[in-house]
Amino acid sequence: MTEHNTTITAAILVIGDEILSGRTKDQNIGFIAEYLTNIGIELREVRVVPDEEAEIVAAVNALRARYTYVFTTGGIGPTHDDITAECVAKALGVEIAVDERAVDLLLTRMKREDLNEMRLRMCRIPKGADLILNPISAAPGFRIENVMVMAGVPRIMQAMLDNVAPTLATGVKIKSESIDVELPEGVYAAGLKEIAERYADVSIGSYPSFGTAGRSNQVVLRSKDEERLAKASDEVRALVARLIAARATH
Amino acid sequence: MTEHNTTITAAILVIGDEILSGRTKDQNIGFIAEYLTNIGIELREVRVVPDEEAEIVAAVNALRARYTYVFTTGGIGPTHDDITAECVAKALGVEIAVDERAVDLLLTRMKREDLNEMRLRMCRIPKGADLILNPISAAPGFRIENVMVMAGVPRIMQAMLDNVAPTLATGVKIKSESIDVELPEGVYAAGLKEIAERYADVSIGSYPSFGTAGRSNQVVLRSKDEERLAKASDEVRALVARLIAARATH
Repeated sequence: MTEHNTTITAAILVIGDEILSGRTKDQNIGFIAEYLTNIGIELREVRVVPDEEAEIVAAVNALRARYTYVFTTGGIGPTHDDITAECVAKALGVEIAVDERAVDLLLTRMKREDLNEMRLRMCRIPKGADLILNPISAAPGFRIENVMVMAGVPRIMQAMLDNVAPTLATGVKIKSESIDVELPEGVYAAGLKEIAERYADVSIGSYPSFGTAGRSNQVVLRSKDEERLAKASDEVRALVARLIAARATH
Repeated sequence: MTEHNTTITAAILVIGDEILSGRTKDQNIGFIAEYLTNIGIELREVRVVPDEEAEIVAAVNALRARYTYVFTTGGIGPTHDDITAECVAKALGVEIAVDERAVDLLLTRMKREDLNEMRLRMCRIPKGADLILNPISAAPGFRIENVMVMAGVPRIMQAMLDNVAPTLATGVKIKSESIDVELPEGVYAAGLKEIAERYADVSIGSYPSFGTAGRSNQVVLRSKDEERLAKASDEVRALVARLIAARATH
C-alpha cells in the first residue's frame, strides 16, 4: 500500500436480485465502506443493480470511468444466474475464458472429475486479470484494470478484500472525531453551521439517533488535517457547553 | 393502493456521508426493498451518494426519469449538512419555501419561539409537494411528482413509508418460493440452468449461505404467475431429490 497525497476514490457495485427483492439484507456495503475509510480510500458512491447484463455493464462502465477503484460483490458462483465475470469482461471489451490458474485453485478442493461444466464457470476470468485469492472456498475473484470483482458471501468477500487491499494505492487517511450532544439538533444547528462555514476543510455532520426531537445526537467532524480537525472539534465542544449552560440558567 | 397489470418500478436513493464513510450502517435499503416487494413494486436500483448538491441532483434526475418511483432517505433535518429538500427542488426545477402546513406540524411539538431559523429549514418544502406525515418527530417528508423524500432515521423512515404507501400504484405482486438444497451448488447448477431455460417467466437464483463449497444453499424462484412458479418449484425439488438419491448410490 502506497500513501499518496492525492485523493483516492472508490465505488461499490452490489450485484444481485436477492438484495433488491429484500430477501437478503446486504452486509457488504457497510463493511467495505469502513474498511476503505480506514486505509485512506474515499468511498464516493454505491449502486445496487439486478442480475441483468445490460444493467451490470452500464454500471461498471459508469463507475470505473469516474472513480479510482470499483469493488463489485456478488454473481461469481457456478449457477446460471452468476454473470458478473462475463459482464465485467464485456464492459472492459476484453475476452473471457477458462483460466488455468483458477482451475488449479479449484483442484486443491475437488477431484478433476467433479470439476463439471458449471463449476468451470467459476474459472472463467477476463484476459489480463489478476486473481484475488479466496481462502474460504478456493474459487477466486479477480482484478482487471481498476475493477475488483469479489464474492457476495460476506465471509468470502472480506477475505478477498484483505487479499487485494495491499495492491491498492491509498490517500491520506481521513481522521474523524465524534462528539455526543445532549441537546436537540435545532438548538445547536445555527452555531454548528457557523463553525462549519469557518472550517471549510473539515466536513461536519450532525446525526440524530432517534429523530429530530431526540436528545441523543452525534456531531461527526472529518478532515485530512489533524490540527484543523482538533480546532474545529474544540469549537464544537465549546458551543455545546455554552448552550447547555444557557439552558440551565433558564 | 391500486393494483395494475403493468410493472411498477422503483429506485432508492440513500443520501449521506455517514453511510459512505462506514460510520453508520444503512438499515433502510433492506427494509424498503422487502416492503416494496410485499406491495407489488419492483425495486430495480439503489444508489448511495454523499451530501453534495451536484451528486444528489444528478442522481435524483437519473432515477426519476427511469423508474415509476424514487424513494430518498436522509438529509431532511435542521442542520447545515441536510440539503436534500433543496436538491430535490433544484432537480425538479421548482421553487422551495417555508411551507405553512409543515410549520403547523412542528408547532404541535414546540413553542413558536423555539422554531428558530435552523428548525424552519425542516419546513422548507418544494412548491407543489404533498407532505408525508411523521408521527415520531413531526418534521414531515414530502412527495413531489414521483419522488418520495423521507428521513434517514429508520424508525421515522418506516413510519413515513407506511404513510405514503397507500398513495402508490402497485403492480402484480411477485410470488416466491425458497427451496433449501443440501448439495453443493456445482452439483445442481447444470440441472437448475436447464429448468431456468424452460421457465423464462420464472426468475431462478441460487444463494449459498457460506461459500460455494458450502452445503447450505437456497434456490429462490420468483414469478408473477403462481401456476408457473409452482410447476418450476416442483421441478427443482424433483431435481434435488434425484441428485441426492444418485449420490447415495455411489
